[in-house]
Amino acid sequence: MVSSMLARAASLGMRRGLATAPETVKVGIIGAGRIGQVHAKAISGMQGAEVVTIADPFEKFGKKAAADFGANWTPNWEDMIADDNIQGIVIGSPTPFHAEQIIKSAEAGKAIMCEKPISNDLATIDKCLDVVEKTNARLLIGFQRRFDGNFQQVREQVQAGAIGEVRMFQINSRDPAPPPAEYLANSGGIFLDMMSHDFDQARFCTGGEIEEVFVTGKAFEEAAQEANDLDTVLVTLKMSNGSFGTIGNSRRCAYGYDQRIEVFGSKGALSSQNRAPHTVELSTDSSIANALPYSFFMDRYAAAYTGVMAAFVEMIRDGTAPSVTGADGRAPIVAAMAAAKSYAEGRPVRLSEVDIVDGASQSSAQA
Amino acid sequence: MVSSMLARAASLGMRRGLATAPETVKVGIIGAGRIGQVHAKAISGMQGAEVVTIADPFEKFGKKAAADFGANWTPNWEDMIADDNIQGIVIGSPTPFHAEQIIKSAEAGKAIMCEKPISNDLATIDKCLDVVEKTNARLLIGFQRRFDGNFQQVREQVQAGAIGEVRMFQINSRDPAPPPAEYLANSGGIFLDMMSHDFDQARFCTGGEIEEVFVTGKAFEEAAQEANDLDTVLVTLKMSNGSFGTIGNSRRCAYGYDQRIEVFGSKGALSSQNRAPHTVELSTDSSIANALPYSFFMDRYAAAYTGVMAAFVEMIRDGTAPSVTGADGRAPIVAAMAAAKSYAEGRPVRLSEVDIVDGASQSSAQA
Amino acid sequence: MVSSMLARAASLGMRRGLATAPETVKVGIIGAGRIGQVHAKAISGMQGAEVVTIADPFEKFGKKAAADFGANWTPNWEDMIADDNIQGIVIGSPTPFHAEQIIKSAEAGKAIMCEKPISNDLATIDKCLDVVEKTNARLLIGFQRRFDGNFQQVREQVQAGAIGEVRMFQINSRDPAPPPAEYLANSGGIFLDMMSHDFDQARFCTGGEIEEVFVTGKAFEEAAQEANDLDTVLVTLKMSNGSFGTIGNSRRCAYGYDQRIEVFGSKGALSSQNRAPHTVELSTDSSIANALPYSFFMDRYAAAYTGVMAAFVEMIRDGTAPSVTGADGRAPIVAAMAAAKSYAEGRPVRLSEVDIVDGASQSSAQA
Amino acid sequence: MVSSMLARAASLGMRRGLATAPETVKVGIIGAGRIGQVHAKAISGMQGAEVVTIADPFEKFGKKAAADFGANWTPNWEDMIADDNIQGIVIGSPTPFHAEQIIKSAEAGKAIMCEKPISNDLATIDKCLDVVEKTNARLLIGFQRRFDGNFQQVREQVQAGAIGEVRMFQINSRDPAPPPAEYLANSGGIFLDMMSHDFDQARFCTGGEIEEVFVTGKAFEEAAQEANDLDTVLVTLKMSNGSFGTIGNSRRCAYGYDQRIEVFGSKGALSSQNRAPHTVELSTDSSIANALPYSFFMDRYAAAYTGVMAAFVEMIRDGTAPSVTGADGRAPIVAAMAAAKSYAEGRPVRLSEVDIVDGASQSSAQA
Repeated sequence: MVSSMLARAASLGMRRGLATAPETVKVGIIGAGRIGQVHAKAISGMQGAEVVTIADPFEKFGKKAAADFGANWTPNWEDMIADDNIQGIVIGSPTPFHAEQIIKSAEAGKAIMCEKPISNDLATIDKCLDVVEKTNARLLIGFQRRFDGNFQQVREQVQAGAIGEVRMFQINSRDPAPPPAEYLANSGGIFLDMMSHDFDQARFCTGGEIEEVFVTGKAFEEAAQEANDLDTVLVTLKMSNGSFGTIGNSRRCAYGYDQRIEVFGSKGALSSQNRAPHTVELSTDSSIANALPYSFFMDRYAAAYTGVMAAFVEMIRDGTAPSVTGADGRAPIVAAMAAAKSYAEGRPVRLSEVDIVDGASQSSAQA
Repeated sequence: MVSSMLARAASLGMRRGLATAPETVKVGIIGAGRIGQVHAKAISGMQGAEVVTIADPFEKFGKKAAADFGANWTPNWEDMIADDNIQGIVIGSPTPFHAEQIIKSAEAGKAIMCEKPISNDLATIDKCLDVVEKTNARLLIGFQRRFDGNFQQVREQVQAGAIGEVRMFQINSRDPAPPPAEYLANSGGIFLDMMSHDFDQARFCTGGEIEEVFVTGKAFEEAAQEANDLDTVLVTLKMSNGSFGTIGNSRRCAYGYDQRIEVFGSKGALSSQNRAPHTVELSTDSSIANALPYSFFMDRYAAAYTGVMAAFVEMIRDGTAPSVTGADGRAPIVAAMAAAKSYAEGRPVRLSEVDIVDGASQSSAQA
Repeated sequence: MVSSMLARAASLGMRRGLATAPETVKVGIIGAGRIGQVHAKAISGMQGAEVVTIADPFEKFGKKAAADFGANWTPNWEDMIADDNIQGIVIGSPTPFHAEQIIKSAEAGKAIMCEKPISNDLATIDKCLDVVEKTNARLLIGFQRRFDGNFQQVREQVQAGAIGEVRMFQINSRDPAPPPAEYLANSGGIFLDMMSHDFDQARFCTGGEIEEVFVTGKAFEEAAQEANDLDTVLVTLKMSNGSFGTIGNSRRCAYGYDQRIEVFGSKGALSSQNRAPHTVELSTDSSIANALPYSFFMDRYAAAYTGVMAAFVEMIRDGTAPSVTGADGRAPIVAAMAAAKSYAEGRPVRLSEVDIVDGASQSSAQA
Repeated sequence: MVSSMLARAASLGMRRGLATAPETVKVGIIGAGRIGQVHAKAISGMQGAEVVTIADPFEKFGKKAAADFGANWTPNWEDMIADDNIQGIVIGSPTPFHAEQIIKSAEAGKAIMCEKPISNDLATIDKCLDVVEKTNARLLIGFQRRFDGNFQQVREQVQAGAIGEVRMFQINSRDPAPPPAEYLANSGGIFLDMMSHDFDQARFCTGGEIEEVFVTGKAFEEAAQEANDLDTVLVTLKMSNGSFGTIGNSRRCAYGYDQRIEVFGSKGALSSQNRAPHTVELSTDSSIANALPYSFFMDRYAAAYTGVMAAFVEMIRDGTAPSVTGADGRAPIVAAMAAAKSYAEGRPVRLSEVDIVDGASQSSAQA
């Protein structure tokens, strides 16, 4: 639950403070942009953790962010990784840098938190995860929805057997409006950019692995058409546990940010409602009206982002294993590749068809 | 809306009674079973309409039903159709009799209301509809969900442009428990028996025609396995208006009868909630609990069934065209056939592949 | 529950039809107005019951209603009561006639269903109930809300102990708009005319008797001011079972008819939501909008009115005691009188202060 | 809205950081207990503000809290107030110290945030506010519910005219379980201890002043009986704007913490629902179950508490007037005194009867 997560975040230091003074967990952040600041703020709000350094090539922004959080600034992330005083690295840089920064951090013995995706290239991911494995590094992938109280509740109840055998599921995930054209042009496509979160949710909430996908989709709006992308997609998934379900994505949602999941089983169903900033109902002669949901994912997932950092700090401090692993970061990329192929070929595609490790091309990859 | 429908049903006679006395609409019913009784009761509750005769081969049941509604009984439906005093025929017999009874009623100049399906055989349907067309008969198909306030509201708002361009939709339709084995063995399979209602809803609520289906499904329980059928199916549909969506069916739903639709468009979404007998919430130390939904489709659609009969009586009295036509009865059968083929072949199937009139096989069929 | 009530209404005749043919319950209705027609329609829709005669002094309306329901018309209700063929009398005439018609019906040995109130004069009520008692007549009072699925559910769960000891309750009851001026002028005031239903609900849902009331109220609108009445009142009630609560009434409710109750106890709370014709939610860029509730009490309580008649027919047929007694009809009148006194004097008033039987004035009344 | 409040809290420093470096707002906190830690944590999580000193007589707790937030500890709050480096004082000490600490802080020219109540003694409050006025001190009272997104939304929409003229309102406020006996014995009674928050809500949400109260109440449980207090109370309020309403309080609520308000007006109603940690619905064969609400007020109002501190820091930095004034802190105390008198005397009591300034006793108080 959100509350327990927040409470845990809040109490990290408090609890320890009752015994002998704990060492403060020291974190370095790569990237002074929006997500880097979110993480810096979360760590600053925790007792028992601090942001030591923020690395960003742009001096103006880097210095400002560092000042805001009482941290040092460096233009050079490699220097920061080399700093023995820093125990954990938060990677909030652009995607093309992720793999190299993970590898260097792992080789330097740091705990690592990396925003998704590790890479949009499967071979690069595998090379990266190989280093992580060989160095025994602990890598936490930033699928923040896994730290949202609603989705955690769904997973917990599914695992507790509340709905019996999982049979069907529906994931709805809609953005208020398409991103800018330049972003769209380099997003990697809707399956990688947007649906990868939902592929992760399908695994997280149902407890199965994705085995096959079938895509129906369309570019209803010019923005997607010009980017040679789709803006509305509906994917059918077959899972390894025998269940099947759909993910529906839309780049446009008039009423705001919409994130819901329903899991249906032999003994019942779990359904997470969307979230709104308040729960005030206005009844007039025209309707019984409720609040619009959040219109921005960072508002919607504010508590979840704090939860990610709390988990990261806890992982460093207590030496625990990451709760969202490199393999969890890899799986949605394979699903996205299969989805793109399904759309292109108009047929169901098994993930083994596109996976260079587990599938048909495995032998050559490992030869 | 349900209320306006009921009000209309109630006022059929009242309104007319203010002018010169109208003639009472006289109806004959084929079949004294459950659905025949539901229709007889609905007509009895209307001013300006009466059940004159109930035809059923089983004397005991036929006589009892006739007595209950102040009607005559006959074992011979052909006699009843020949009765000049009767204006409209309600066909509530087993499916194999539908086509012949429609044809005979049409030839006798009767208004006809027939339970779905007309037939599970496309050639039979087409032959039947051919007679209906040639005789200028008016045939109303009993898709009662079209008379449910929720689904009517969805359709009306979609047509009024409340959500802009229709892009995606989700239909959930779940039965509390599988029917008896003997029923299942002769049901025609889940696509014909259960999903045909939902195929109709997809057309009714989105305003498009089904062009392609892709099926994922499974028999989770023995009942379906033994009947060589599926009990849980998820179908992706592409519609002629460019939208696409899913229908999810389950023969087993622990919490009762579950019937919902969500239609998503460029300007918003319409979402019909499931219905429960009451809206009392019980808050205790274990949960905030709401009522289970209806557990039986005849309770859930009680008002809708009354609405069907009100429409039928109005159609007879006012000479209006049927609101649910023979073509509406035919379309879901084609979709069900395509769905069965999609499941068998594991690929998306266009309806034109299975349709003997509009599709690839048309020429041979009409040669 | 509504569904079970409807089912019961529907099956009255069906069940019996399986045995030897039952006698049809024969009912006479006084009053061909709106409520008389509602009751006539309900009886017509039941197997095993019929409306034999409708009494109304206005020939045009009386004849029309009689024709609509296949009944006889008489201008003289006393003749109807004298008809040995009629077993039950439904009294839907104006209030001033109720008491006399109850008395005559009781003396003629009829089962009686009377709309509330028996009278707005306590002495008249007591005289009337005295005859009912002496003749062993069975009198059912038409508090239709007791037959609503929501309120029944609240009562049943309270009695089943679902919320433990009852401690507080809130009843909200709001009308869409004030009645016409001429109606208001003769309504007897908001406490008798409108809140008497809610006083009954307080007793029905909590299981206690009203002992004391305290009123805050106001005439916000001209209509009430001109009628020397209030349009918005808030009453605090102390009950005999130790619980206390409020009733809030408003003659004006912008969003429609609003009827809710919350009962709070040591182990939880029961809360009945308002009811709307459909449950379709429209999400747009301006709100998440749900349907307006019913705007007319006869739509809101359509099933409840049917339930009243089903109970009446069952009471006649099976010889059971009435479920809403003359005492139930009397109690809200006493509460309304106390409420009027509380408002006039600006202080809490015990019901014993105004009751001519149980309270301070009892001795003189019985001397 | 919560989100905008959090965003504002988050951005306090960020915005300013873009210009010349702002001075950090420096705060001292009196009291290292639960509420002091909540406020310390909130300030620590804001850029542009810091906790400089925490004053608490208990060395162990004071030192620990100081260490947790990187602040100094002092056993002597007067020293802290004398510290020129500190701009704002947060008073989180036991109630008997509030007035003196406010006075000393005011005289030292500090901005002040004080937990409610200023005092339970009206003369003490007035003496304190007199100093505040004369020193032009800015005093913010910690009614945290005013910073809750739900209640803010109600107030904003009422003020915007969304429901027209305010006519009636209902405030429900229920605690999960009674506090410990020793707390109850010294709480000042349910009206001061618990309902003062709701009296404030009545003023905040309706925009009127409380003029009269009438109380019905009871001690259902031993805990309250032994403390010579009530545990369940229902108060009717008349407001200066012509509206009236109720507040219902219970020390026991089986399903958790329950805080709701409904405001009803000439054009509609606003209704704030209770809040729960998640919005996942579990449908099984026994119920459609939603999450229990929060069970602890600090979880329920976590964002609101952050909002209070954000407002305080903003008030210091920007020199704005406090949004919750000393007069706002005073008014609920008068209402609570009137409520106690109403219960004792069993009659409605006007606030002027108990107020030493505005009411009947005003002359003697000011002579």
